[in-house]
Amino acid sequence: MKNISPAFKNIVLSKIVKISEIVREKKEEFEKSKGKPFIQFQRGDIGIPTPDYIKKAVNDALQKGLTNYPKSGGENFFKDAVIEHLKEMGIKNIGRENIMATYGGQEGLQLVFSLFRGSKCIAFSPCWSCMLDNIFPYSETNYKLLPLKENFEIDFEKFEKSIKNAEILYLNNPHNPTGKVFTYEELERINYLCKKNDVLIVSDEAYKDILFDGNKFYSILEFDNDNVLSVFTFSKTFSATGFRIGYTVSRIPSIIEKMTLGDYSQTAGVVTFLQYAFKEALLNKEEREKWLNSFLKELSERRDVAYEELKSFIDDVYKSGGTFYFFIDFKKLLKKKIKGNVEDYIVNSLIEEGVAVTPGSAFGKDFSGYARISISTLGKELIREGIKRIKNFFLNN
Amino acid sequence: MKNISPAFKNIVLSKIVKISEIVREKKEEFEKSKGKPFIQFQRGDIGIPTPDYIKKAVNDALQKGLTNYPKSGGENFFKDAVIEHLKEMGIKNIGRENIMATYGGQEGLQLVFSLFRGSKCIAFSPCWSCMLDNIFPYSETNYKLLPLKENFEIDFEKFEKSIKNAEILYLNNPHNPTGKVFTYEELERINYLCKKNDVLIVSDEAYKDILFDGNKFYSILEFDNDNVLSVFTFSKTFSATGFRIGYTVSRIPSIIEKMTLGDYSQTAGVVTFLQYAFKEALLNKEEREKWLNSFLKELSERRDVAYEELKSFIDDVYKSGGTFYFFIDFKKLLKKKIKGNVEDYIVNSLIEEGVAVTPGSAFGKDFSGYARISISTLGKELIREGIKRIKNFFLNN
Repeated sequence: MKNISPAFKNIVLSKIVKISEIVREKKEEFEKSKGKPFIQFQRGDIGIPTPDYIKKAVNDALQKGLTNYPKSGGENFFKDAVIEHLKEMGIKNIGRENIMATYGGQEGLQLVFSLFRGSKCIAFSPCWSCMLDNIFPYSETNYKLLPLKENFEIDFEKFEKSIKNAEILYLNNPHNPTGKVFTYEELERINYLCKKNDVLIVSDEAYKDILFDGNKFYSILEFDNDNVLSVFTFSKTFSATGFRIGYTVSRIPSIIEKMTLGDYSQTAGVVTFLQYAFKEALLNKEEREKWLNSFLKELSERRDVAYEELKSFIDDVYKSGGTFYFFIDFKKLLKKKIKGNVEDYIVNSLIEEGVAVTPGSAFGKDFSGYARISISTLGKELIREGIKRIKNFFLNN
Repeated sequence: MKNISPAFKNIVLSKIVKISEIVREKKEEFEKSKGKPFIQFQRGDIGIPTPDYIKKAVNDALQKGLTNYPKSGGENFFKDAVIEHLKEMGIKNIGRENIMATYGGQEGLQLVFSLFRGSKCIAFSPCWSCMLDNIFPYSETNYKLLPLKENFEIDFEKFEKSIKNAEILYLNNPHNPTGKVFTYEELERINYLCKKNDVLIVSDEAYKDILFDGNKFYSILEFDNDNVLSVFTFSKTFSATGFRIGYTVSRIPSIIEKMTLGDYSQTAGVVTFLQYAFKEALLNKEEREKWLNSFLKELSERRDVAYEELKSFIDDVYKSGGTFYFFIDFKKLLKKKIKGNVEDYIVNSLIEEGVAVTPGSAFGKDFSGYARISISTLGKELIREGIKRIKNFFLNN
C-alpha cells in the first residue's frame, strides 16, 4: 500500500485485545488440565445483561418504524432527554445546539481530537489505553503524558508548567484505570489553570455513574468555563457497551456543529431507534433508579471483595472510588530478580496460573509493571478466587 | 475556533438536507392553502417499512444477549454470511480477512478515502452528492470529475487520459443519480485501464439489488484485478437506511486491516446485534426472496409510472435501469429567459407548485439545471401527481 495517511500509520490493535487473544488460546488448555475456570480481569466489558426496559424500547422504536435515516447530530427527542438529564446533574443552559449523539464515547473523543488534528495535548498518566493506541495517533495529536504521583495525586507544579504549552487537556473522570474520582477542589484548580492558559478541556466522563462510598461526581461542565467539552456514553451506566451510543456536550456550538458534520461524513448519523431506546433509558426514572441501585450494589460488593483480597497481601492498595478498576503496582511485589521485561514476566506467569490482567504499560510506559484488574466481567466468587491466585503467585515469586 | 483540521474546513450540510429544510417551512402553508399534499422527490430515503423478519432478528439478538463490545471488523458469523452471499453473486475466494462490517456504505467509503488521504481521484459526474459534500473534502481527496456524455455514456477517450494521473477511481454502480447500470463491457474496459495504470478502483455498489427490466449487476469484484474495493450497504436492499450497516470487501487484506483499525478508532466497531440481524437478512433466503420480489415489483411500477409521466412532455428521458432515480435536464425545458441562476429559479418555482426535487448541481456543477427525482419515498399516485405538476410548470414557463 502506498501513500497511506499518517493517521493510519500508528494506530494499533489494543493491548487488551491482544491479551484476550492469548487468553483464548490458553483458556481451554488451562481449564481442561486444571479443572477450574480461567479468570479474566483484563476486560472493561460488563458481564451483567443490559436492562430489559432498554431492550424493550429498541423493539418499540422498531415497531414505531423509526428506521429511516437519522437526523444529523441527533433527534430532538434524544437531545431533549439529554438536556433534562444534565439538569438533574445540575448542569444548566444547555440547548440542542450544544449536544450531539455519537457512536459511544469513543466517537465523541475521536471527532474532537480529529477536529483539532495535530494539537498539543496534555493527559494524566496512567491514561486510558485507547487514547494512546487509537485516538491520539489517529488524530495525530502531539500529546505529553503527565504521571500522577503517589496515591494518584496530581502534581500541580508540573501541571502548571506543562499546561502553558498545551492546546487541549484530556481529562478522564472518574479515571480509568485507577478508579480515582477527581475532587471538586482538584477540578476547580485544573479548570482555573486551563482557562488562564486558554486550553480546551476535553473531559471523558464515561464512568460518571459508577461511583462508590457516596462519592460525588462533578462534571467539568459545572465549572465557570465555556472552553470545555464533555464526552458521555451509555455503555457503562446501562451495561450497554455493545449498543455504541453516547453523546457529547460543549458550550461552544461551532464545535458541535463541526463535529456533527464529521459524524455525518463518517457514518451518516447515529441509529435513530437506538437514540429512542436511550431517551427511554434516561426518562423512565423509575426503571432507571431500580437498575442503577441493583447494578451499583453489585459492583460495590465486587469492589469490596476485590479490595479485601488485595489488602490481604498488599499494604497500599488504592481503593477505587468509582469505575470498574484497580490499578496495582505488581512489580514491587515481585521478590525474584528477573532478566528482561518484568511486566511481561508477571503477565505471562499469571496467565499460566489461570488469571489475565491488563499490563500497566498499556496505560503509559511509566506504569510498566503495574496491572489493571477489572471487576466488571466476573461475579464475587471468581473475583475472590482470581485474586487468591495472584496472591499465591507473589507469595512464591 | 483555532487550528481546525483541513478535513473539517470544507465539509458541508448536504444540499438535499437544505432543500428538505426549505420544504419543512413551505409544506404546511402549501397544504393548508391548496388543500393538497406537498410532494417530495428530493430524498433518497425509502417510504416502505423494513421487513418484519429483520426487526424480529434484532429482537432475537437482544434476547440472546449480544449486547457486549463488538469484535473489531465484524463478527465471524457476519463475515461468513457475507462470504456465502458473495458466492451467490459469483464472487469467490473471499475470506474473513477480506471483509469488514461498517456503519452503512458511508463509513466504508470514508475509511478508504481517509486511509489514502489526499489521493488523486477520478469520478464520473454527475456524482453522488455526499462524495462531493462530505467524503472527498473530509478525506482531502484531490478529485477530478469526468462528465458522462449524452445518454450517460462514458467518454473513454477522456477517461483514458485522466486515469493516467490518478491513484483512485471512484465508481458508483448502479449509478446515483442517473439510474445507469454499467454494462459488463464498460466495466471490463474501466477495469483494464485502471489495472494498466495501477489505479485502485473504489466501487460503491449500494444499489446492487435495485435493478429493473432484467438488468444484471456486475460487481467490480468479479473482474481479474486485485486492486479493487467494493462498498456495500443493507440500506437500499432491505429498506434499512436507518440501521446504518454495510460491509466493505477488498482482495487486499492489508487495506481491510487498516480500515478495521480506523473503524475501531472511530466507533469501537459495528453494533453486534445489528450484525446478527443482517446475517439473518441474508441467510433467510425464503424471507429475503419474498421481500425482494415485492419490493422490486413496487419500485418497478413506480419507475414505470414516473417514466410514462415524464415521457408525456420530455422527448429524451433516460429510463433508469436501477436505483430510485431519474436525472433530467430541466434547464432545456424552460422556455422563459431568466436573469440569474436558472437552476435556483426552477427549483424554487417548483417548490411554490408543491414539488421538491434535488438540484442537479448537487451532483457536480456541470449538471446545474438538471434535477434528480426520487421514486423511493412516495406511492404511484403521488408520483403521478407530482410529475403532472412539474409538466404543468414547464408548459407555462
